[in-house]
Amino acid sequence: MRYELYYWSGIQGRGEFVRLALEDAGATYTDVARERGDQAIMPFLRSEHAGALPFAPPFLRAGRLVIAQTANILAFLAPRHGLVPASAAGRTFAAQLQQTITDVVAEAHDTHHPISVEQYYEEQRAEARKRSAAFCAERIPKYLGYFENVLERGDGLHAIGRRHSYVDSSLFQLMSGLEYAFPNTMKSLRRRTTHLRALRDRVAARPNIAAYLASPRRIPFNQDGIFRHYPELDES
Amino acid sequence: MRYELYYWSGIQGRGEFVRLALEDAGATYTDVARERGDQAIMPFLRSEHAGALPFAPPFLRAGRLVIAQTANILAFLAPRHGLVPASAAGRTFAAQLQQTITDVVAEAHDTHHPISVEQYYEEQRAEARKRSAAFCAERIPKYLGYFENVLERGDGLHAIGRRHSYVDSSLFQLMSGLEYAFPNTMKSLRRRTTHLRALRDRVAARPNIAAYLASPRRIPFNQDGIFRHYPELDES
Repeated sequence: MRYELYYWSGIQGRGEFVRLALEDAGATYTDVARERGDQAIMPFLRSEHAGALPFAPPFLRAGRLVIAQTANILAFLAPRHGLVPASAAGRTFAAQLQQTITDVVAEAHDTHHPISVEQYYEEQRAEARKRSAAFCAERIPKYLGYFENVLERGDGLHAIGRRHSYVDSSLFQLMSGLEYAFPNTMKSLRRRTTHLRALRDRVAARPNIAAYLASPRRIPFNQDGIFRHYPELDES
Repeated sequence: MRYELYYWSGIQGRGEFVRLALEDAGATYTDVARERGDQAIMPFLRSEHAGALPFAPPFLRAGRLVIAQTANILAFLAPRHGLVPASAAGRTFAAQLQQTITDVVAEAHDTHHPISVEQYYEEQRAEARKRSAAFCAERIPKYLGYFENVLERGDGLHAIGRRHSYVDSSLFQLMSGLEYAFPNTMKSLRRRTTHLRALRDRVAARPNIAAYLASPRRIPFNQDGIFRHYPELDES
């Protein structure tokens, strides 16, 4: 099946979690907005199509299905491409972890937009400094401590069981994004994230992922995405 | 099967979405912290048990499984109790909608805690006013407009297909929470939420839900939960 991914063409954003799964699987897909422009997304948001209505990108077209919400797209794709254990318990745990990643990604976004997504960062800079200070001091350590603990309870290498899953790729992306946005904070947490950093390196070395990261298909991190590097927000 | 729900005993919070599904299904469950106190939750958060590790409540014990993340718990429970269509497409759409409800609930929480969950509301009141103004002016209309559209594209009565599902109960809870927290804003949106308000009334009249809402098991909304009523945050 040829998938169609709909996500903003200029950023990694939430779509990157889906791109990584598709690339890792060696799936055939079109990154629609990168080929046809962001306006290709709009008819779906305006309810001018059949199938499920997305609230926002990313969404995936798979045959007649339209599927939105990052964690939901991944839960749909993964069993079709061997990226999650076959057991119901394994899939449920994977969904739980991915939904927790969704939570921390939303909080990472709000460090630069703590008041309104309709306003520029520069209009909410003072509040962004406060929110980021709390995010770096409390939330990053809490979330990464949790995921580190998950790895320790498993085989030390994988989020679920003893095999690679889409959650591992998502943790790679989470680590990469946090390291881009908050290098000082992440450096201070090096000793408390040994399993996560080893996982990040292992995922980056998977052949399909390595080829993707080296290709022009991987959009560099930038100041329009979810993970943004403002030095004033990473002073810890 | 007797389920065990673990959630803070003093608030509706995120746990209420699970309570509503369990009550609607007529399932047998123990609301553990309400019987044994909130400290019964802690061993699970401290990793002192077998099974999946939760990041935070709510989580559900079902036999040997431990399942966390509200949308994930509901996706697990619903097919076992006829609260979601049997088709894969129906379940995927239900998960998408529930995860979108998760997003708006997180944003509702952040109206009173825009800077840090570790600080009191009173310490972030100025920022809370700004964030709430944006939430009421932009985000509530956008989210409810979306869900209203979902109902209009369906049979007008149900989120998924032509039958009641757990998403309907969650939309009831979302509407109830927003009406408690932001009565002025919600009043101003009355004409744009006709389907959602009819759905809310229909769900409230389901026999098991009506019995639950009239029972002491339904914790009243209060100022410790996710939906809080501060008049200064609802000035629209």
